[in-house]
Amino acid sequence: MDGPEHVKIDDLPIRAELRGQSPYGAPQLTVPVQLNTNENPYPLPEPLVARIAERVAEAARHLNRYPDRDAVELREGLAAYLTRTSGHPLTREQVWAANGSNEVIQQLLQTFGGPGRSALGFEPSYQMHELISRGTGTRWIAGPRRADFTIDLDAAVAALAEHRPDVLFVCSPNNPTGTAVAAETVLRLYEAAQAVKPVLVVVDEAYVEFSHRESLLGLLTGRPLLVVTRTMSKAFGAAGLRLGYLAADPAVVDAVQLVRLPYHLSAVTQATALACLEHTDTLLGYVQRLKQERDRVVGALRALGLEVTDSDSNFVQFGVFEDPQAVWRALLDHGVLVRNNGVPGRLRVTAGTPEENDAFLAAVATVIKEL
Amino acid sequence: MDGPEHVKIDDLPIRAELRGQSPYGAPQLTVPVQLNTNENPYPLPEPLVARIAERVAEAARHLNRYPDRDAVELREGLAAYLTRTSGHPLTREQVWAANGSNEVIQQLLQTFGGPGRSALGFEPSYQMHELISRGTGTRWIAGPRRADFTIDLDAAVAALAEHRPDVLFVCSPNNPTGTAVAAETVLRLYEAAQAVKPVLVVVDEAYVEFSHRESLLGLLTGRPLLVVTRTMSKAFGAAGLRLGYLAADPAVVDAVQLVRLPYHLSAVTQATALACLEHTDTLLGYVQRLKQERDRVVGALRALGLEVTDSDSNFVQFGVFEDPQAVWRALLDHGVLVRNNGVPGRLRVTAGTPEENDAFLAAVATVIKEL
Repeated sequence: MDGPEHVKIDDLPIRAELRGQSPYGAPQLTVPVQLNTNENPYPLPEPLVARIAERVAEAARHLNRYPDRDAVELREGLAAYLTRTSGHPLTREQVWAANGSNEVIQQLLQTFGGPGRSALGFEPSYQMHELISRGTGTRWIAGPRRADFTIDLDAAVAALAEHRPDVLFVCSPNNPTGTAVAAETVLRLYEAAQAVKPVLVVVDEAYVEFSHRESLLGLLTGRPLLVVTRTMSKAFGAAGLRLGYLAADPAVVDAVQLVRLPYHLSAVTQATALACLEHTDTLLGYVQRLKQERDRVVGALRALGLEVTDSDSNFVQFGVFEDPQAVWRALLDHGVLVRNNGVPGRLRVTAGTPEENDAFLAAVATVIKEL
Repeated sequence: MDGPEHVKIDDLPIRAELRGQSPYGAPQLTVPVQLNTNENPYPLPEPLVARIAERVAEAARHLNRYPDRDAVELREGLAAYLTRTSGHPLTREQVWAANGSNEVIQQLLQTFGGPGRSALGFEPSYQMHELISRGTGTRWIAGPRRADFTIDLDAAVAALAEHRPDVLFVCSPNNPTGTAVAAETVLRLYEAAQAVKPVLVVVDEAYVEFSHRESLLGLLTGRPLLVVTRTMSKAFGAAGLRLGYLAADPAVVDAVQLVRLPYHLSAVTQATALACLEHTDTLLGYVQRLKQERDRVVGALRALGLEVTDSDSNFVQFGVFEDPQAVWRALLDHGVLVRNNGVPGRLRVTAGTPEENDAFLAAVATVIKEL
C-alpha cells in the first residue's frame, strides 16, 4: 500500500458496508432563500448573544480542566424547561444530554441495539434513525405508513410481531412529512412492542414545540422503556450548538452512561446551552411566529391546488409532482433552496421569515405554472 | 416491565456485555491539589479568554444555522499548527477534528474496526483505546510490553503475526507510563503490520508536545494507513473544550466522514478552538514550564529512592509500591489527588504548578516514610 500518489477511500481497508457510500447531509449551497434544513430563521436575540459570551468567558477561565462529566447544571435546566412547558414534573435524573440528538440516539443504540439486534421505524422518517442504526451495527427494519403518511396501527402492530425489533422509533412530529402522532397511538405501539419482548421505544420530538399536539412526556411515568428525545436546534434556534437531550426513566439515563465517551459534552457547549435556557420565553415567542407562518404556507400551497401534508412542525411537505427533482431545481433557479428527501412526488420546505416564505410561495406559483 | 418504583439498569434490555459495567472516569473529588487527570494547571491567559468570548459571540449570531459540517477553517488552522511545530507541511485535507480524540478514535474504529474485526494495543496504555474498541464491537487484543514499559519489538511483531488485528494502537508518549516511542520502532511496527494484511496504525500523540522526541507526523508521507491523533486538552490547556484531531492521508479523512454524525462539531467549539490557535505561542510557553517541572518531579522522586518511568509527558509514573491504593489514599489524606491506573505497583501524577508539585513531593516524602 506504500507510495501511491492519490489514495482513494476504496484503497483502504474500510468496512465492507461502507464501500460506495457517501457522507450524509443536505447540499450546502448559498442561495438567497435557504429553506432546506429546518433551521430557525430568527438569529438569537442580541441580549442572549451577550449572555452566551459572558457564560462562555466564565467557562473559558477553567477550560484547562475537564468539563462536568455529568453536566449536572445543564440537565437540571433542561428538566426545569420540560417541566414548565409540559406540566409534567421531571428531574435531572431523568434527563441526559449530548452533542445533538444524533449523539443521543447513537448512545441509545449502542446500549439497546448493536450487533445481533434490530431497530424499526416507520418510513419515510428521519433518515438518521436508519443511518445511526447501521453505524452501530443495528439491523434496520423499514416499517409501513399509510398513503397519507400517518401510522397505520394495525399494520404497525403486525410489523412489530413479525420483526420483533429491539428498538422502535416513532418520530412525532414526523420528519420529513410533518404530522405529529397521537398519544394513544404511541401508547398502543408501546404496549404492542412490550407484548413480544422488552423493547426500547424512542419518540423523537425534535419538532414538538411547533406541534398542535402535546408532548408525550406525560407518558413516561411507569414506562421505563419509553424515551423522548429533544433538541435545541429547532425551537431554541440553536442548530449551531449541537445540543440534543432525552427524557426517560433514570435507569435509562444510567444505562447510556455505560457507552457515552467520557467528558463528551464540552464546557463551552454546556455554558452556551445554559445561556439559551435563560432566554426560553423570547425563543418560544419566535416559535409562535413560525407556527403562524407555517400555517400560512400550508394554506397558500393548498390554495395553489397542491397537496400538503398536515404539519405540526416548522416545515411543510408538499406535492404531488411527477418529477420532484425538476421542481427542486426550478425553485433553486428562483433562488429558493428546499429539500428533496426522496419521498415520492414530494418536497419539503422549512417555514422561514414572512419575507422568505413570500419568496418561496411566489417561486412555487411561477414554477407550477410551467409544469 | 410497567410500574416498578425504582427500575435498575439490569432490569433494562441493555446489551449483555454492558451488564455489571461502570461508566469510565476518574473519581471527581475536590481536593487542594488535583494531579490525577493530566490537566494543564495553567488557566488560559485572560487575552485568550476575551478572544474566545469575541469569537463565540460572532458564532452565536448565526447559531440558528447549522455549523460548517466540514470545519474547514478549523482544519486549516490545525494543519498550519502541525506544519509550523513539526516542520512537515500538512494541509486541511489531511486533518480531521471531532469532540475530543475519543470521538476521533471512535470514528476510526467505526470505519476500520467494528464487528468481526479486532484492534491491538500494548498494555498498559490509554484505557479508552480498549473501551472504544469494545464500544464499537471491535475485539480487543492486549499486546505485550517489557517490564520497563517500553515496546518489545520482537514480541510486538510476533503478536501482530499471531493475532492479525485490523487496527494497531501505539500511544506515544504512552499514557499512563509516560515514555515516547522511537520513530524507528513505529516504522518497524507499521511494516510488520502491513506484511500480514492492510492494518490501520493509529499513533496517539495526545502528549507529544511534552516529549523529548519529535512527532511522527513526518512518517505520514507514503503511508496511507498511518494516522496520528492529537488533542487540544493537554498542550493547549483546553481539556474543557473537547477538541481532538487527526492527521493522515486525505483518503482516511474522507473515509471517517462516512461514519461521522452530520454536524458533529458545534459552531461554538469551532470558534473556541480557532481562538486558542491564535494564542499558540503563549500556550506552548506553558508547555516549556511544565516540561521543566516534570523533569524536576522525576528527579525529586528518584532522589527519594523511588522508581520512576522515563517521562515524555506532562505526568510521571512512579513506584514501586506493594499497595499502590494505600499510597493513593495516604496522598489523598495529605490533600493530593493522584491516579491509580491499575498498573501493578505504580501510581501516576500530573505535573502541576511549582507549588502543586512541591505539595505533592512533600506529601510523597512523608507518606513513604510511613510505609
